[in-house]
Amino acid sequence: MRAVIRRNKQLVCDEIAELEPAEGQVLVRTLACGICGSDLHALHHMEHMIELGRRGGGGESGFDPTADTVFGHEFCAEILDHGPGSAKTLKAGTRVVSMPLTLTPGGVEALGFSNRLPGGFAERMILSEALILPVPNGLPTEKAALTEPMAVGLHAVAKARMDANSVALVIGCGPVGLAVIAALKVAGHGPVIAADFSPRRRAAAEKLGADVVIDPAQESPHDRWDALGVPKARGAQNMIRMMGGSFGRPVVFECVGSPGVLQALIEAAPAGAQIVVAGVCMETDRIEPSIAVTKEIELTFVLGYTPEEFAATLQNIAEGRIDVDGLVTGRVGLDGVAGAFTALGDPEAHVKILVEPAT
Amino acid sequence: MRAVIRRNKQLVCDEIAELEPAEGQVLVRTLACGICGSDLHALHHMEHMIELGRRGGGGESGFDPTADTVFGHEFCAEILDHGPGSAKTLKAGTRVVSMPLTLTPGGVEALGFSNRLPGGFAERMILSEALILPVPNGLPTEKAALTEPMAVGLHAVAKARMDANSVALVIGCGPVGLAVIAALKVAGHGPVIAADFSPRRRAAAEKLGADVVIDPAQESPHDRWDALGVPKARGAQNMIRMMGGSFGRPVVFECVGSPGVLQALIEAAPAGAQIVVAGVCMETDRIEPSIAVTKEIELTFVLGYTPEEFAATLQNIAEGRIDVDGLVTGRVGLDGVAGAFTALGDPEAHVKILVEPAT
Repeated sequence: MRAVIRRNKQLVCDEIAELEPAEGQVLVRTLACGICGSDLHALHHMEHMIELGRRGGGGESGFDPTADTVFGHEFCAEILDHGPGSAKTLKAGTRVVSMPLTLTPGGVEALGFSNRLPGGFAERMILSEALILPVPNGLPTEKAALTEPMAVGLHAVAKARMDANSVALVIGCGPVGLAVIAALKVAGHGPVIAADFSPRRRAAAEKLGADVVIDPAQESPHDRWDALGVPKARGAQNMIRMMGGSFGRPVVFECVGSPGVLQALIEAAPAGAQIVVAGVCMETDRIEPSIAVTKEIELTFVLGYTPEEFAATLQNIAEGRIDVDGLVTGRVGLDGVAGAFTALGDPEAHVKILVEPAT
Repeated sequence: MRAVIRRNKQLVCDEIAELEPAEGQVLVRTLACGICGSDLHALHHMEHMIELGRRGGGGESGFDPTADTVFGHEFCAEILDHGPGSAKTLKAGTRVVSMPLTLTPGGVEALGFSNRLPGGFAERMILSEALILPVPNGLPTEKAALTEPMAVGLHAVAKARMDANSVALVIGCGPVGLAVIAALKVAGHGPVIAADFSPRRRAAAEKLGADVVIDPAQESPHDRWDALGVPKARGAQNMIRMMGGSFGRPVVFECVGSPGVLQALIEAAPAGAQIVVAGVCMETDRIEPSIAVTKEIELTFVLGYTPEEFAATLQNIAEGRIDVDGLVTGRVGLDGVAGAFTALGDPEAHVKILVEPAT
């Protein structure tokens, strides 16, 4: 079957071996699979990512960055066949989504970052029967394929300690920031301030329900705290409390992942702010702890989602609570993946590009 | 009256102007006042501290680092006289402690870091009637003077999100670390692991109730997590959860405040750990956010205490729930303060030195 393979730090279309589902597994046909920012990073910096993962306590994954890899972990697929001894609860032909993990006798394979099983940039994949979720009837495939990136937002918001009056500021409106905005609005939080240099991304933020959308080239989003009832300085905060007043907890979502952003937020955020770090900065970064101490800042680093958050996100999309309409800004076949990686370097060009291996 | 004055980045004994309590103020005689690590730092780096405070949102304090300052913010004192129109709820002769703040018509003065009012390294001080707390009958002055540094520990523990089975690791057993250990044990938390290179500080940690005391030169305290039921790796944690098991949330208290400690903890702590940053690193520090992301680490920067925490700490000491016996390892008169600052540079020599201006 055909797949887009990472080989020698390039993406090439080639044939790979056919797949055979083992016990507890299903063979699926990939209908659509989004390209993630982590795919772009991994194309060139896989060794570094593996090293960071190992130091992050992931152990020895056995993953070989010099061997072939098929990316793709944001997918919607259709069941073709079941492995032996299967319950076949979901029949062939059923459209499904899954967390990008497949259980094998040798361990858990991370689909999209595995040498052993292909991710969604291949015509077919092997999924685990225990992890697949049926796409609710009528939900278009392209929306179901957004379950994975949108679940990242639900998880980040779950890790935030919002109160009833919390004001949320989302820095960066790429796919992660947009997922956070959607999850904030689903949970009824607000006001939500969203900031991004890109007009296209600001428009997407507004469509997903951001209450205030700001171009940081024009004004600092941190100038809005006071108008939204959150004094920035600790002294002013203490004064309000002494007078028996209150204000919502300020929560900032860092969805950029570039060096320097954390320190800029530590300096600019209100005292007492929780900064939920959903952007993944892969470089060593500098912070000034004494300023974070003075302001009693909290840095909450988050990753991924739980199975429950993944399932809830699919339901949120299927039932229209999260309107992902318009987030898919491009579609390519396997031949177009390499070009799509290049196109995604320009934040103005795209939000999310889907790969459709059958086209 | 006599005082130890910071002048030209040196400590000199000299006469300063007598004090007159205004409305709402009391004149007190300083009985004892501890020397804090922040005093040591401020002696040479006051300009930098002021700059960091300003950038931390403290506004323009009006504090002049080139003008005379009398340090000392950990004190016990005796009421000498009341300002005009006072309620005189506490009579002259009453021993009191207070958060190191004095309300004046011009604003709030931070005692020990003010050009306008002296701190506790002076024979007398001006306190606010609204903030003074009587020392419960029979509590020795030297123990009452430890209220302020011990309150720092209560606040840090209050900011930690411990659960019933949480395991706490305290890195650094100087006055801040010891205050954290005491507060953990008062709250019934444990097991508490304490780590410090100094035998004297390890002995103090053990006396305050640390369950496991470790010399980091001999072994990494992080080797103990598994034996205490907390798997370090996310994979092992997930496995326990999948099997229906549970484990206590790992909480690490950073009580050192030197560059590099945060990153070392991010790398060594269990996945999902909360790192409560009570040490104050005054330099720019480096962290690798991607490792913190992979492990979903939380960095909670904390400072000071609330009035309620300060009052509760006094009660904890007075009623014997916190046994501060032995923490005071030296006493000096005003003439001995400069020498005591030097002596405190050696962690083996002392835990806490009290200044007794009357001796």
